[in-house]
Amino acid sequence: MNAALSSSLFFTPERIDSLLPLRADLEEVERIIANELTSSHKEFADILNHISNYKGKRLRPALLLACAHACGITNENHWVLAAVVELIHTASLVHDDVLDASQMRRHLPAVHTLWGTKSAVLLGDCLFTNAFHMASKLDNPRACKVIGRSANRVCEGELLQGFHSGDLHISEATYLDIIDGKTAEMIAASCELGAAYAGASEKVIDSMQSFGRNLGMAFQIADDILDLVGNENQTGKSLGTDLEQKKLTLPIIYLLQNGTQEDKSSMIELLSNPSDIKRNKVKKLLIDSGALDYAKNKAEEFIALAKCDLQVLAPSTFRTILLDITDKILNRSC
Amino acid sequence: MNAALSSSLFFTPERIDSLLPLRADLEEVERIIANELTSSHKEFADILNHISNYKGKRLRPALLLACAHACGITNENHWVLAAVVELIHTASLVHDDVLDASQMRRHLPAVHTLWGTKSAVLLGDCLFTNAFHMASKLDNPRACKVIGRSANRVCEGELLQGFHSGDLHISEATYLDIIDGKTAEMIAASCELGAAYAGASEKVIDSMQSFGRNLGMAFQIADDILDLVGNENQTGKSLGTDLEQKKLTLPIIYLLQNGTQEDKSSMIELLSNPSDIKRNKVKKLLIDSGALDYAKNKAEEFIALAKCDLQVLAPSTFRTILLDITDKILNRSC
Repeated sequence: MNAALSSSLFFTPERIDSLLPLRADLEEVERIIANELTSSHKEFADILNHISNYKGKRLRPALLLACAHACGITNENHWVLAAVVELIHTASLVHDDVLDASQMRRHLPAVHTLWGTKSAVLLGDCLFTNAFHMASKLDNPRACKVIGRSANRVCEGELLQGFHSGDLHISEATYLDIIDGKTAEMIAASCELGAAYAGASEKVIDSMQSFGRNLGMAFQIADDILDLVGNENQTGKSLGTDLEQKKLTLPIIYLLQNGTQEDKSSMIELLSNPSDIKRNKVKKLLIDSGALDYAKNKAEEFIALAKCDLQVLAPSTFRTILLDITDKILNRSC
Repeated sequence: MNAALSSSLFFTPERIDSLLPLRADLEEVERIIANELTSSHKEFADILNHISNYKGKRLRPALLLACAHACGITNENHWVLAAVVELIHTASLVHDDVLDASQMRRHLPAVHTLWGTKSAVLLGDCLFTNAFHMASKLDNPRACKVIGRSANRVCEGELLQGFHSGDLHISEATYLDIIDGKTAEMIAASCELGAAYAGASEKVIDSMQSFGRNLGMAFQIADDILDLVGNENQTGKSLGTDLEQKKLTLPIIYLLQNGTQEDKSSMIELLSNPSDIKRNKVKKLLIDSGALDYAKNKAEEFIALAKCDLQVLAPSTFRTILLDITDKILNRSC
């Protein structure tokens, strides 16, 4: 595993030991991603090179591979599929950055800041379609079905979120539907494909899909909580962006639906000018009203469900890795 | 066939008789497209309804179905595939409009003018991914392979075009590579899939793919010529947009590479201020220098190759339709 990869994984360096059993597989995935991010068109060399330095946490590939191993085997299909899910995730990030006008991504300038909006949108399209092409070359048609369904749900989730931008009446059910699409679906697909291409039974495949979905829901709720009440110095990333972009997330939705009249009025007042959000006041209100605890509990419920899904697996090093990821997902600092 | 459909087909009303044998199949395709453009999310109803009124020429579905019939049969797979290629085409148009900041599409406001850039980009993503999901549900994995490869080439072609925006040194080879990707590839895929899902031999399938590619090349060269020298009153659409967007097309590329020093200088001078292009002067220069004739001849060469590809088919009503489309593609007025 090269230095760039090891520093980019989901776990912070002190936790990386737990992923050691996946090292060889993740190296293969990196090799495939690097190969896909080259082109016969010399014009694309710089932009693809930039994207290849955009190393993320590789959460989806790690889960796909761990699920495969936990079901007994990994093979070349898994490496390709892990690259496919990561490239679809990268495509959606490139588009997200354009749409949210974000300047930075993973400590590098966002694509659109260097090559313009047009190239960024088209690059995202190229990444999406390339991922489908990769999936189509696998023998078993399940990959195309799962990837097609999931990528579509991801985009629907993002679109739905956009339609509810600034919606003070958004329900918890709609919020859960949005995060199920934009985040949980592709994590569920990763776990499903890991199991399916390891030859697991349909019962186990379904449980792995459910595990990924529950884990993804918890992951996104935790991420949304962090954006509202996290510490920028500790996390090393800019926070409070959801409110700037008028995305209401679970703690605020809960407070607006279930808080006292006074708390609701205070929150609406705080949200009325997104360019001047008083983050500390929002945080205090969410803590004092119990809304933050409500959201944390909801994330923990999903974690409990995810752990329950893992019971279908026989005990193994890789089931332990999956449990470890599940335990740590609520306590991210990066 | 409903009125909206019949008025929107590739052929102008006086020519529609030649497509009558495809009427029943095209109705099925419209039914599938309409069904796909509905969603369980009520939030998407208006934007999807808008898109469903964006009826284009249905060139790709018509070619796919005519190729299928010419190879002996059409069935439900063909209807789904015809809808898939049309939806991918629609997705790329939605993104094109955002990227080119076009205000109108097919006599309706472009999506981004009504719902904003963010929704337009995400809607395009939803259409792309939905098309893949549709293709993945067909039994034969060929659909996913062909659609994956082609959609990727379309996006690469668009990206390559963007990288050469304003490039006065762009070669004819690069121009041909761009239009092969952005236009000819998906037309080639349509013809290939029509033949493949009719059970044709690989030799016939290859010839149909080649036919579609040659036809697509001719189609795009003709479209580019029309944009430079066509008559707005006659065509009913705004022209000259390629120059405004700094897209150099074949007649201009030929002149800049092969014209006299005087003609080159005059053209560079005319191109120097895209916001104030003197279209009549550009037109006169392209005619007088022979550059326009060169481009027309190139389009005719592709037409001749396309007709040659059709020789692999036994004579039939549908081969005649394909020949008819081929003959008319250079003389479009809409």
